[in-house]
Amino acid sequence: MEYGKITQEGIDYIISVTAPDRVFTGEAIEYDYCHDEMPEYGTSRPDVVVQAMSTQEVSAIMKYAYENRIPVTPRGAGTGLAGGAVAIYGGIVLSLEKMNRILEWDLDGLTAVVEPGVLVMELANAAMEKDLFYPPEPGEKTASIGGNVMTNAGGMKAVGYGVTRNYVVSMEVVLPNGKIMQFSSNVAKNTSGYDLKDLIVGSEGTLCIATKLRMRLIPLPKYSYTLLVPYETLESCIGTVPRFINSPITPIAIEFMPQQLLLDAEKYLGKVMPHKTSAYYLILMFNGMTKEDVEKQCDKAAQICFEAGAEDVFLCNTEERKEAVWSVRSAALEAIKASTTDSDECDIVVPRNAIADFVQYADAKSREYGIRLMINGHAGDGNTHIQLCRDDMPKEKFEEQTPLLMNDLYAKAKEAGGQVSGEHGIGHARAGYLENFMGEDMIDLYRGIKCAFDDRYILNPGKVIRVKES
Amino acid sequence: MEYGKITQEGIDYIISVTAPDRVFTGEAIEYDYCHDEMPEYGTSRPDVVVQAMSTQEVSAIMKYAYENRIPVTPRGAGTGLAGGAVAIYGGIVLSLEKMNRILEWDLDGLTAVVEPGVLVMELANAAMEKDLFYPPEPGEKTASIGGNVMTNAGGMKAVGYGVTRNYVVSMEVVLPNGKIMQFSSNVAKNTSGYDLKDLIVGSEGTLCIATKLRMRLIPLPKYSYTLLVPYETLESCIGTVPRFINSPITPIAIEFMPQQLLLDAEKYLGKVMPHKTSAYYLILMFNGMTKEDVEKQCDKAAQICFEAGAEDVFLCNTEERKEAVWSVRSAALEAIKASTTDSDECDIVVPRNAIADFVQYADAKSREYGIRLMINGHAGDGNTHIQLCRDDMPKEKFEEQTPLLMNDLYAKAKEAGGQVSGEHGIGHARAGYLENFMGEDMIDLYRGIKCAFDDRYILNPGKVIRVKES
Repeated sequence: MEYGKITQEGIDYIISVTAPDRVFTGEAIEYDYCHDEMPEYGTSRPDVVVQAMSTQEVSAIMKYAYENRIPVTPRGAGTGLAGGAVAIYGGIVLSLEKMNRILEWDLDGLTAVVEPGVLVMELANAAMEKDLFYPPEPGEKTASIGGNVMTNAGGMKAVGYGVTRNYVVSMEVVLPNGKIMQFSSNVAKNTSGYDLKDLIVGSEGTLCIATKLRMRLIPLPKYSYTLLVPYETLESCIGTVPRFINSPITPIAIEFMPQQLLLDAEKYLGKVMPHKTSAYYLILMFNGMTKEDVEKQCDKAAQICFEAGAEDVFLCNTEERKEAVWSVRSAALEAIKASTTDSDECDIVVPRNAIADFVQYADAKSREYGIRLMINGHAGDGNTHIQLCRDDMPKEKFEEQTPLLMNDLYAKAKEAGGQVSGEHGIGHARAGYLENFMGEDMIDLYRGIKCAFDDRYILNPGKVIRVKES
Repeated sequence: MEYGKITQEGIDYIISVTAPDRVFTGEAIEYDYCHDEMPEYGTSRPDVVVQAMSTQEVSAIMKYAYENRIPVTPRGAGTGLAGGAVAIYGGIVLSLEKMNRILEWDLDGLTAVVEPGVLVMELANAAMEKDLFYPPEPGEKTASIGGNVMTNAGGMKAVGYGVTRNYVVSMEVVLPNGKIMQFSSNVAKNTSGYDLKDLIVGSEGTLCIATKLRMRLIPLPKYSYTLLVPYETLESCIGTVPRFINSPITPIAIEFMPQQLLLDAEKYLGKVMPHKTSAYYLILMFNGMTKEDVEKQCDKAAQICFEAGAEDVFLCNTEERKEAVWSVRSAALEAIKASTTDSDECDIVVPRNAIADFVQYADAKSREYGIRLMINGHAGDGNTHIQLCRDDMPKEKFEEQTPLLMNDLYAKAKEAGGQVSGEHGIGHARAGYLENFMGEDMIDLYRGIKCAFDDRYILNPGKVIRVKES
């Protein structure tokens, strides 16, 4: 793949369509723009970083990049976990962080139009002030809405509310050639041509750049209770999940934490959990419009947990207790990283009834390879987050063993009817694993779609699918 | 576009990979295979009709068609309203009606695997026997699941439960070249490569043929009440809708019927509605797990309706009353067709707060063109079904005026931020309107996607996008 090189003229052009204080080159490029949350996957310094402020600026930059075949890596808040926002081919990092305005509230239809750089927590908080609710809640609340849409982020509350896809109503995008397009509009249903909106959700910035997003909101639930449920065995803990799926009550979240992780996270945060002496934990959340409704759900849930073999059920209905439990859950990734030297991760998703078996397989592989695994995740979705911890293994050996262990885990996931990634995406870190997993015919389809949007392979090259050298 | 012609050898081959009693040619082809529910859009006799019984048969037929460049039109139950299942280029009609088995029930994850020819009412009834619920309910319950997936069918209950897309978990498909692929699997979330599953939903059989579908189910609601709500003015009737969207209760259905249509449908069916003297009606449905819950919702709903200017609220909580109201609503299309000579239809969708304005615009255009319009539809989704009735207008004049009136309606829809079709799809009948509505750049993207799947343009050609003559 022969890419063009940015010239001084090119930089001058980019400055002319944006502003001098938003274009950075050479040493002026901050290190933050060279990696995401997994610098382990490699860092890369782009030739230029430009902070766009409008759709027109994005369009002008893309036109230039298209004509000159310059790679462009779009970037939101940089909180990704698969290297998706890292400019592995150099060229331009097009940062959308300053396109961070909430542009419109549609209180009749319950939607809001946001620029892609709005942070998830900013939209959630602004909605709450209007008595509305933006449900998707990834572990990283400083992620941008644009980034969440591009990875179809899931998060804690996906069991009850679904993933980011379910909240994307329509989008304005800029194509790699600079053209500005609208995919769907403020409608509740749509069968008018191919569903490009849903194709773009989860496409990791490889097909086009979203410059405006209309997101769905729902009425704000008035009450939220959390249950912390300890178990002695993995089987009874995970075995609780299907009992909820097939029951008249819907937990908002069903999270799984083994004891060690709970202790690590508690220590990392300096918080105190209501209970910590059992081997496995589920954390459940129930929301409702009335106190009575939420209490009823919790009663029923406790009954389901006890029937499934829970040792106890702790009701967290004060802000303080809820905060302790959920902050400990949210700190899992950071706590694991702090507990070891280096780490790698995957977020394999399997059918809900295959989680227990998958977790046991991973445990066995951990012993076989001598690599400590920390497993936690969204039990209600079959989505495990597995952290491979180097600890005191020699770095070289860890780097040699990790891909072998990963291959085993992905093979097991495939056998169980699962998928490579539930919510973190492919980026460049998992592109090779995806190729193996999907096979050549599927990758050919992906390439055809990539080509329909980006015939010059300039937009986020090397992510999701790898560029075919030609 | 130069297509190959089916030879006797080809027919022999198709028989050899299927069975002689499932392959029809010439006069043996029943008229049913020459049209869908809108023969007004033109009928067309294919060269061959083949009833496939398995994925392998579909694959073998497609391989032959691909090699010989024969057009293939996939067909489910033939209940479409846009000509999508009509073989306008001749060739093969590949009927999936005999692939009608429910293959698997996953009671842990609440999904079922079905062949595409299973009817919507068959899946709904079979699920009910297992205390489960398949919510999508198009007007035509004898539609096939495959057809519903390919048009992303909406229906009455989309307000509360969403459209067909929300119930498609994964699919097995056959590509135009005969290759068999899996798009997603039995997982609750997925960010592993491009989301081909959601691209296929609503693609009207133009990209691939779905041969197995894993559909999501939900626990069966135990109680369902219906409210019939009369209004004197259109404004107060339609103005009720946003009040529900932004309220803590969620109606399952919010249907709109003007008096004349209600009277026509009542007469057509020989049923008696609980009320019929008002100018406009909303029909609301509320579901719940307890009687108390549904009654509470209905109380709150009645209050909302009265605040919005309803004249009265009739509670239908007996099977007999509910059946009367919903059968009258379901008979709307048939009743309109029976009330006139010829008709044409569109199912424009607009933002929810733009319906009243759109309906008034359509009313004015009706007077301007002297064409009677019957408007009903899914008010809760902003999805109107507009029937243009010829009555005693000369046929030629009607056929000349209809496209002009349609153009006006689509232009108004675009101005209001709406879309060409909410749920009926594009087929060939609306392909020209779609081109005008979307513009050349969007159609180019569609063509690129079509080409990624179907580089020989053999699968359902002329539907959604028109084949470029070359």
